[in-house]
Amino acid sequence: MATGKINVSVENIFPLIKKFLYSDHEIFLRELISNATDATLKLKHLTSIGEAKVEYGNPIIEVKIDKKGKKLHIIDQGIGMTEEEVRKYINEVAFSGAEEFLDKYKDAGKDAGIIGHFGLGFYSSFMVAQKVEILTKSYKDEPAAHWICDGTPEFTLKEGKKKDRGTEIILHINDDDKEFLEEHRIRELLTKYNKFMPIPIKFGTRTETLPKPEGAKEEDPAPTKEVDNIINNPNPAWTKKPADLQDDDYKNFYRELYPMQFEEPLFHIHLNVDYPFNLTGILYFPKLTNDLNIQKDRIQLYQNQVFVTDNVEGIVPEFLTMLRGVIDSPDIPLNVSRSYLQADGAVKKISSYITRKVADKLASLFKDNREDFEAKWNDIKIVIEYGMLSEEKFFEKAEAFALYPTVDGKYYTFDELKEKISGQQTDKDDNLVVLYASDKEEQHSYIDAAKEKGYEVLLLDSPIVGHLLQKLETSKEKLSFARVDADHLDNLIKKEDTKISKLSEEEKEKLKTQVEEVLGDKGYTVQLEAMDSQAAPFIITEPEFMRRMKEMQRTGGGMFGMGNMPDMYNLVINTNHELVSEILNTKTAKKRERLINQSLDLARLSKGLLKGEALTKFIRRSYEMVK
Amino acid sequence: MATGKINVSVENIFPLIKKFLYSDHEIFLRELISNATDATLKLKHLTSIGEAKVEYGNPIIEVKIDKKGKKLHIIDQGIGMTEEEVRKYINEVAFSGAEEFLDKYKDAGKDAGIIGHFGLGFYSSFMVAQKVEILTKSYKDEPAAHWICDGTPEFTLKEGKKKDRGTEIILHINDDDKEFLEEHRIRELLTKYNKFMPIPIKFGTRTETLPKPEGAKEEDPAPTKEVDNIINNPNPAWTKKPADLQDDDYKNFYRELYPMQFEEPLFHIHLNVDYPFNLTGILYFPKLTNDLNIQKDRIQLYQNQVFVTDNVEGIVPEFLTMLRGVIDSPDIPLNVSRSYLQADGAVKKISSYITRKVADKLASLFKDNREDFEAKWNDIKIVIEYGMLSEEKFFEKAEAFALYPTVDGKYYTFDELKEKISGQQTDKDDNLVVLYASDKEEQHSYIDAAKEKGYEVLLLDSPIVGHLLQKLETSKEKLSFARVDADHLDNLIKKEDTKISKLSEEEKEKLKTQVEEVLGDKGYTVQLEAMDSQAAPFIITEPEFMRRMKEMQRTGGGMFGMGNMPDMYNLVINTNHELVSEILNTKTAKKRERLINQSLDLARLSKGLLKGEALTKFIRRSYEMVK
Repeated sequence: MATGKINVSVENIFPLIKKFLYSDHEIFLRELISNATDATLKLKHLTSIGEAKVEYGNPIIEVKIDKKGKKLHIIDQGIGMTEEEVRKYINEVAFSGAEEFLDKYKDAGKDAGIIGHFGLGFYSSFMVAQKVEILTKSYKDEPAAHWICDGTPEFTLKEGKKKDRGTEIILHINDDDKEFLEEHRIRELLTKYNKFMPIPIKFGTRTETLPKPEGAKEEDPAPTKEVDNIINNPNPAWTKKPADLQDDDYKNFYRELYPMQFEEPLFHIHLNVDYPFNLTGILYFPKLTNDLNIQKDRIQLYQNQVFVTDNVEGIVPEFLTMLRGVIDSPDIPLNVSRSYLQADGAVKKISSYITRKVADKLASLFKDNREDFEAKWNDIKIVIEYGMLSEEKFFEKAEAFALYPTVDGKYYTFDELKEKISGQQTDKDDNLVVLYASDKEEQHSYIDAAKEKGYEVLLLDSPIVGHLLQKLETSKEKLSFARVDADHLDNLIKKEDTKISKLSEEEKEKLKTQVEEVLGDKGYTVQLEAMDSQAAPFIITEPEFMRRMKEMQRTGGGMFGMGNMPDMYNLVINTNHELVSEILNTKTAKKRERLINQSLDLARLSKGLLKGEALTKFIRRSYEMVK
Repeated sequence: MATGKINVSVENIFPLIKKFLYSDHEIFLRELISNATDATLKLKHLTSIGEAKVEYGNPIIEVKIDKKGKKLHIIDQGIGMTEEEVRKYINEVAFSGAEEFLDKYKDAGKDAGIIGHFGLGFYSSFMVAQKVEILTKSYKDEPAAHWICDGTPEFTLKEGKKKDRGTEIILHINDDDKEFLEEHRIRELLTKYNKFMPIPIKFGTRTETLPKPEGAKEEDPAPTKEVDNIINNPNPAWTKKPADLQDDDYKNFYRELYPMQFEEPLFHIHLNVDYPFNLTGILYFPKLTNDLNIQKDRIQLYQNQVFVTDNVEGIVPEFLTMLRGVIDSPDIPLNVSRSYLQADGAVKKISSYITRKVADKLASLFKDNREDFEAKWNDIKIVIEYGMLSEEKFFEKAEAFALYPTVDGKYYTFDELKEKISGQQTDKDDNLVVLYASDKEEQHSYIDAAKEKGYEVLLLDSPIVGHLLQKLETSKEKLSFARVDADHLDNLIKKEDTKISKLSEEEKEKLKTQVEEVLGDKGYTVQLEAMDSQAAPFIITEPEFMRRMKEMQRTGGGMFGMGNMPDMYNLVINTNHELVSEILNTKTAKKRERLINQSLDLARLSKGLLKGEALTKFIRRSYEMVK
């Protein structure tokens, strides 16, 4: 038996680090700028505690392209390294400088905002460079160092000529990676990963126009000067205290995050927690359309102001992935699988914290300015309804602010709605029946009929409304929802009193046979009802249960197999209508057929079912009748 | 000046390998099974060239869960390792055993199908296990070895007791990773990554029913036996020669790939190339709906039968990502960014090879069985049209098989269509005008009118058809497309002869004023036309250019800003229609208004524009007229 130590052979690991460490080559720049930021923040910390006796000043990080020399420079004015430190931190791969630093200044670490997790990031340079140089001068009074490595494990290290404090990394870019010598590509990367990093990053210069000197003539051109072009905002809104921000600051930050987005956000939620986990951020409610797909993945995840990803699946509850904004937390483990993430205790707490904050914000918006909340309802309802369906806690909280709009533009909470309609719309079995429409235009004649009876009709047009109704019906007692075209109104809300039919039972039988003969196999179930004589003579209805199940299946759910069932329609005939009596008493079969067909066509038209050839024929017949 | 060698310190690199090497913990199993497959294929090769004097037999790989002992076993019957080899391959991380083997047996390498790229994969075990054991016995006549490591760089290595040739890896699973002791989770992983690996993988057993012995009574139960449950198909269809496969083999393989997919694929394309790159695979055309979004990312990418990803973006031309199937190529670089992939020369060649193969297959399907091709057109057109728009080469090839269906269910190639309609549908400026509809039902009356004039009407209903028409119009000379409701037919295809109007210029002026007074600000532009007296009196038209631009913008493209323009409609009045004369000559303003309104409503109905309250009122008026 032998014991030993696993030997990592450099010749073999080095190419691996270079090639396989990151699947995405472009992150090398993020890593180098993180290191530069790190070095600068370390210096800030050491000067603040008096350990470094130098002027901290206003250090920046500079990124420079030397296209001719095929070089990319990243220059910081931070802590710098002595020759000994280069030997220690750079030559011994994965000897984490940041970790050691954090160990030494433990309590200060958080405030100083140290980014780097391990020195390995530096080696990602070799993914795009065949040679890398480090020119560095420490804040300590020691000579500068110059390190050169051509991508093999061999390096040279000599005294350097650098005069200013800080570190300059020079990448000699591979021929295969020339994209990283293009200005637009580097700008793209800086904008993607470093837009909100805490140290100003200079990339080129820009021309600024100065005020004209006193006494200048009108035709004199205004003087200009070249100034540093700083590509980042080192103090993004989410790092500030809510008390220090105005509404406009939030709006401006939204435009910073989404420069291509012209619409303003509806409102924002500032997240800020430091126990039991660290998280800051700002979430925005954008205007949403009814399309659930294309709008996700707009929340950006940062760790200490470094962009990490815009995939927040598993971290933010699914219904909130439709929001936009920023979340910054060092406590979210990122190097684990998404399925593992969802089981992680800390992540679960973060997720429920965000849910609670969103619910509280919505509740206070509703309370503080109901009119404004109602005006925004249409744009935010999809998030709220989705949340009510997927998070039980949110469902309970939403009781306070979830709105049910009517076709006439009034908005009720559920309790208000109940209060308002329970007198008129409670049926003989004591069930509250809520009537709704999904489309004001398409269901106009049905809505009209319901309103004439004094009923309120809600307008519920979200794609997931079927699921929500199902949930409401099962979580509340003696409540049911019915779309206005689900049946004839007296059947939808059954009262004690029954209408008297003008027709006798025999007449009804006869009428039914007459109509069914003309209908043939068009698939309508004939239903005779004694209705108001002013109501329409023929009405087509579509039973609620079947229709709702089919709709639910389209958005996921419902009963299996219902999606493929054919549509089901009933033809309701008003036995008290004058025209129906006329049909019954018409002597000639031809005239009766014409009356039935014309009435059927009008009922189909009302329900949006008269199309194609049948519609063309109807129109031709109607032109004849106009003449 | 000093030179030196970068030192990778094991204490620091080891935790990194364990934690950060793969962002997804679950791939440890794929890596271990790749190693086991590797070890087995190596043995196969050595026996085939006579270097190993042992029986190759029918080796399998076994995966076993020991839930109680919290252990996962992966056992192969491959080449095994001597103590010296364990020391060499396992203890020296990243010393790539496979690479060395390949160097030695260079030419044989490809055929032997060696999978592993570097030994590092083994260390991914430590992502889920706190202790790992290796029990191994080489095919050489040497003692077995037993290696144990608890996740620190320290290990012990002693003589082992293993009697059979091969290697057994035992993972002592972490408490945090207990999911990998669940049968369903391991089965899920094996199905995802190893379904088509070349060595049979056993996971548990299953009961097989045997035939009854002769003379058994009817009531006797059939005998059963426990057999190995093999979870993979070691010889998937794509690894075979097309000549050895029947149509049913392809269909069966489709069901293997997509067990939840009930619809059969329409047809398949077998890819097989070994120069200048290696690629095999089978692509399937599934039935597609018109929704472009949800159907992508169903092609699976393999490397030597190991599943890699189902994201083939950048490898397969975008229009083909709607297909399904498998691509297997060791030549696709996977550890580079997607944007880099698209610029890679080899990948470009792969992409254009696939495009060409698909075009050739479509051309031969069309040639060999046109009837069948026509029957499938509706299901494949979206891919073909998208390809015509996005790949110029494909556009040229598609000339041979792209079809243009008519509303009557006939299918023409473009040349056939031109031949067929150029007599009737060439206008006075020698332009060929192709008429089309996007919906047979909605545009029925317009289609009817065009057919009455002897014109062919195409049915073009893809969501991207606007873009395709634009492309056809610009790439062919003297060709334009117009939807049947874009204008009155005599304007859509202008001939030399002009119809004589029954009305004088003054009468026309008077009529126009009368109609415009009733219309008010409803937004219709009135257009008087001398048409056939049998044509409709009022027609609403929607100019082609504006409508098409708006539609194009909805699917990306078109002219900027057009998407927000209001819909534009003209009201065409047939001055030769009897009803129009009646309107002109009616004495009372009230009757005239009624005639105009009723005619307008019927025209709006024809174009699908009569809705909501206006429709309800129209229906009420019509019931009155029925009586």
